[in-house]
Parts: sequence; C-alpha cells; structure tokens
Amino acid sequence: MRPPVNRQVLLARRPEGIPQASDFTIVETAVPIPGPAQVRVRNVFLSVEPAMRGWVSAVANYSEPVALGAVMRSFTAGVIDASNHPDFPVGTQVTGLFGWQDYAVVEVTAIEQVIEAQDLPISTALGVLGINGVTAHYGLLEIGKPRAGQTVVVSTAAGSVGSCVGQIAKLKGCRTVGIAGGQNKVQQCLDSFGFDAAVDYKSPEFAAQIAAACAGGVDVYFDNTSGAISDEVMKHLNVGARVIICGTASVASWNPTPMGPRVERQLLVKRALMQGFVIFDHADHYQLARRELGQWVRAGQIHYVEDVLDGIESAPDAIAGLYRGENQGKRLIRL
Amino acid sequence: MRPPVNRQVLLARRPEGIPQASDFTIVETAVPIPGPAQVRVRNVFLSVEPAMRGWVSAVANYSEPVALGAVMRSFTAGVIDASNHPDFPVGTQVTGLFGWQDYAVVEVTAIEQVIEAQDLPISTALGVLGINGVTAHYGLLEIGKPRAGQTVVVSTAAGSVGSCVGQIAKLKGCRTVGIAGGQNKVQQCLDSFGFDAAVDYKSPEFAAQIAAACAGGVDVYFDNTSGAISDEVMKHLNVGARVIICGTASVASWNPTPMGPRVERQLLVKRALMQGFVIFDHADHYQLARRELGQWVRAGQIHYVEDVLDGIESAPDAIAGLYRGENQGKRLIRL
Repeated sequence: MRPPVNRQVLLARRPEGIPQASDFTIVETAVPIPGPAQVRVRNVFLSVEPAMRGWVSAVANYSEPVALGAVMRSFTAGVIDASNHPDFPVGTQVTGLFGWQDYAVVEVTAIEQVIEAQDLPISTALGVLGINGVTAHYGLLEIGKPRAGQTVVVSTAAGSVGSCVGQIAKLKGCRTVGIAGGQNKVQQCLDSFGFDAAVDYKSPEFAAQIAAACAGGVDVYFDNTSGAISDEVMKHLNVGARVIICGTASVASWNPTPMGPRVERQLLVKRALMQGFVIFDHADHYQLARRELGQWVRAGQIHYVEDVLDGIESAPDAIAGLYRGENQGKRLIRL
Repeated sequence: MRPPVNRQVLLARRPEGIPQASDFTIVETAVPIPGPAQVRVRNVFLSVEPAMRGWVSAVANYSEPVALGAVMRSFTAGVIDASNHPDFPVGTQVTGLFGWQDYAVVEVTAIEQVIEAQDLPISTALGVLGINGVTAHYGLLEIGKPRAGQTVVVSTAAGSVGSCVGQIAKLKGCRTVGIAGGQNKVQQCLDSFGFDAAVDYKSPEFAAQIAAACAGGVDVYFDNTSGAISDEVMKHLNVGARVIICGTASVASWNPTPMGPRVERQLLVKRALMQGFVIFDHADHYQLARRELGQWVRAGQIHYVEDVLDGIESAPDAIAGLYRGENQGKRLIRL
C-alpha cells in the first residue's frame, strides 16, 4: 500500500558531467487533484535513460534543461486513476513525460501514447515498444537504410536501443556486430540478441578485435557512444557507409568539446554519411514502429531484457549506475 | 607552332603532403598514333585541381593513386585531331581524363563529354561547366538541399567550386557567406560572386567574424577545407543543418589522422547531417547540371573567373601554387 503522498525526485543541483545521486533530492508532497479536463496518472514504471545526462546539462541540447528544483524529467508508464476527461477513463494505461514521481496531473495532450499492446507487460511501453525501440527502429531503418548482406555495427549493443538495433538489422538480413563493455554483456549480445559477433571495448585487444569482426568493412554504424569506441569503427567504413549518431555515452563531458580524430577525410573518401537525430522530432514514426516492434516481440523475433530497480529511492543513483555499466538491459524503476 | 613531340608531365616521386614542382618531370615523347577505333586528342587546356593532392597520395583515396612514372592524371579540354572512329570526327571538342600532356590517344569510351556549349569558351568545359561546376551543383542541391531564406556557408568561396556554390545558392534565394583567404579574395567574393558576406580565414578576428556573419545560424555548409576553418563554422549549425564534405584543402596531411574537435555531439543536438561525396560517382547528374549551369552562365547569373597559366612548363608547380593560395578563380594551363 502506497503512502497517500506524492514522492518526487527533484533536481537539486546542476551536475558536472554524469548526474550523481547527490544531485537529486526526494520530497513528499500532497497527491495532486486533477482540474477540469485533466487526468491523474499513477506511475507504475519510471524510465532511466543515458540521455538524461543531457536533459539536466546546462550545455546546449535538444530540449530545455530540467530546471533546478523541478521534478526530474522521465518517461513513465502508468494508469489513469482519476479523470476529468471522458476520452481517458480511469484504468487507461498511458505513457508520457510524467517525471520521476508517484503521481502526475496532466492535460491529456501530454499523454504520449495510450498503450495498445495490452497483451504485453506494461513495462515494454517504456523499452522495446517505447522510446528505445522506436529510436532503434527509426535510426536504423530511416537513416541507416541497411540492406541484406551488409554489416551493421552497434555500440552499447546490450542496451535497450542497441539490442533492438541489432535484432532489427538481423531481421533485415544483415550481419551484426555488437560492441559492449565487459564479457557478460558481450555474451548477452551473442546469446540473447543474436549478434553475429560481439566485441568488448574494455579489452586491450579492442582495436584488433573490431578490425577482425569488421574484416568486410562497415556499412552501417549505429553509434550510441562516440569517443574511442567510434574512432575504431570509423576506420573500417565501406564506401557509402551510414553512421547514425544516436548518443555519445562514452564521452564524459562536452564542455569544452573534446578532441578526436577528424572524420572529414574518411567521410569524403568513403562517400559516407554521418547524421544525428533526436527521436522526439519523429513522432509521426512512432505508431508504425510500435506496430512492427510489437509483432516482432510477439513472434519471438525480438528479445528484450529489463533491469528493474525497486522503489523511487533507487532513482537518484540510477543514471550514474548506467554510466558505471552496471545494468543489463533496459533500466526501469518499479513503483 | 608546337614541336612535333608529345610533352608529358610525369609523376617522378610520391609527394609527402602537397605535391611540389620537384615531384614531377617533363619528358618529350613521340606524338602517338591512334589505333583502330581510337582517336587522338590534342589538349588545349589542362586542369589543375586541389583534389590532385589526393590523386598522387599513397593514402587510401577514392581512386587508384597515379603510378610513379605515369603521366599526371588531369581533366583536359581539347580537339580530336586524328580519328579512326566515325562518331568522333576530327574537329570534335571533347573533355576527359587525358592527362598533363600535349596529346592523348584514347578509346572513345574515355571521352567524358563532347562539348555541346560551342558558344562558350572551351575552357568553361573544365571549370564552370566542367567537373567544378558539376561538383558545386550536385553537392549543394542534392546533398545540401538549400531552401530560400536559409544561410549557406562556403569555404574556398573564391575558388572554382566555391564561387559556383555561392552563386547557385543565391539563385535559390539563400543568404550566402563565403570564406576565403586574404582581402583580395574576400573582395572578389563580394564583387564578382555576389556573396552577402565574406570572411577572411587568415584574419585574427576570423572566429568573431564568422560568428557575426552567421548570427542567424548555418543551414548548409559546403566544406572544401576541413580543419580550423570548418571548426568555427560547425559551432553555428542550425537544427537540421547539412554539412557537405567536398574537400579538405586546409589539412596538410591525413597520415596520421589529425585531431580536431569531435563533431558527434553537435550533429546529434542539431540533428545535423555530414556527408562526403565524390562527383565521379554521379555521372548521371552531369548532363542536367551542365545544362542548368550553361543557362545561368549565358544569362549572366553565374560568373566565373579563370586563372590561366601558359605552357606545360607551368604544370609541375601549379598544384603547390593552389595550396599557396596564389590563384584567383579556376586554375588552368593553356597549351
């Protein structure tokens, strides 16, 4: 039984680099009451994303930084438990940016999706059928445009986005190479996500191993890390390669911009493309992606792994934990 | 009257970095005789391109390096003066990769174009209607996709490709910012090529000046230089920007790969694209581009400037001279 309060995780200070537990504080406030045409969502799962580092950073980003003292921005999946809107009755399962808290009172326009895949666990709406799966689907298929027989390399390949990218690429007939940190995750790439090869970026032999795994060259690189990991992949681009910039998880700070090997000559000589994207720009793609992903999950063609932490008390340290590499699969907080 | 010999400029040694006069040697050989179905081209103009540095480099490139002892690879414009092929009679004006020499005997499949724009000087077939103009047309329009009102920045803006990019962008209703080296070229950008603003990358105030010229942000950057010039432009990308990698003229050597500010975060946050291309991949675009460019030149909507050196003796030092920045406009050698 939950206490009749709304526990909220607030951003207490502006992190330098990776947000740590000490950057957040937990407060208890009154459970909010929906006003006219509003609904109240009781959050069931909170999401934890590498991108949250950017959301709390003061450095230029794709969205306004979370304000100091505000509830931490987060996707959540929950159930409407009080409603003043006839189209969204009590019991409706929804997702949205409802934040790290027990309850959110919102306008119905803030509802990102009404969960359609009722036969699948609600947590999937935040992972493989949520923003992570949709990110993988859009980035790989719309920017990467993989063709059967091509080699697709993915960094953070055991993560929620990366594992989905690898499996979609495999479904499209590609050869898949995963990059992950540590032998456990490498093994997970091979055993759970069907990568044709997987390489440990923490190995002293990483450069040689990625060269061997990509002996036929790289046609698509789905980059979630940037940094030294990507530098090795970039050496093996094939003519016409597509590099999808989805995240920069391996770079601790972008202020000032860190130095790395210049990519211009390689992009020119290989007639290659490098393109960044932010999935929030592509809401028109969500429904198509969710439908396809749902079919693949039901058919057992796409597997997902969840890393579930219990209780809102685990939230403040959860982002730092991602960057420590301690999760296996999509990190969620169950309330 | 030319001597009855074929003077040829041979690659004598593999240059380190920028090819110098001492890397070439001039020899005299017999004027070649066409065999069955072949033609002999008497070259009238030889082309000089920044890209030639890459053509003679041993470092991985988009084409086989010119062999030691071989005639220097070059586009030329000339006239067929001996023919064993009925479709290409004596007098036909043609272009092709006929090399730095007086005469070339070739199969007719080696003819890149039969010059159609007979009303324009034959030299235009190597510049504004040649590979340079076609490069500008393809890169800007097919990759850059500029829209009216957007800001287009071009490096080496007074050069053959850059000046054409700026003028096409202007014709498409864009605001154009040119980057060039030295006050003479900056003035030429403004006076001859109609750039809305032009900035001298050699100025100690370059960073501040490019920031001021791009106060509304950069939508398209046509990059011929890479290096410190591009680093400043990259700071000002707008959301959805397109960076076209056409050349890397400002970087002296790519072996080993030089370091620069990492671009991944900026590409991600700005949802931007960076794409390299090599015009030889897009022969199917040449005819369309030449037709449009020819119309614009005749209508006085596109201006071009040529920097003509006289005599094949000027060829060996001509590439180094480009990199010394001594040319104004398209560099050609008239035989």
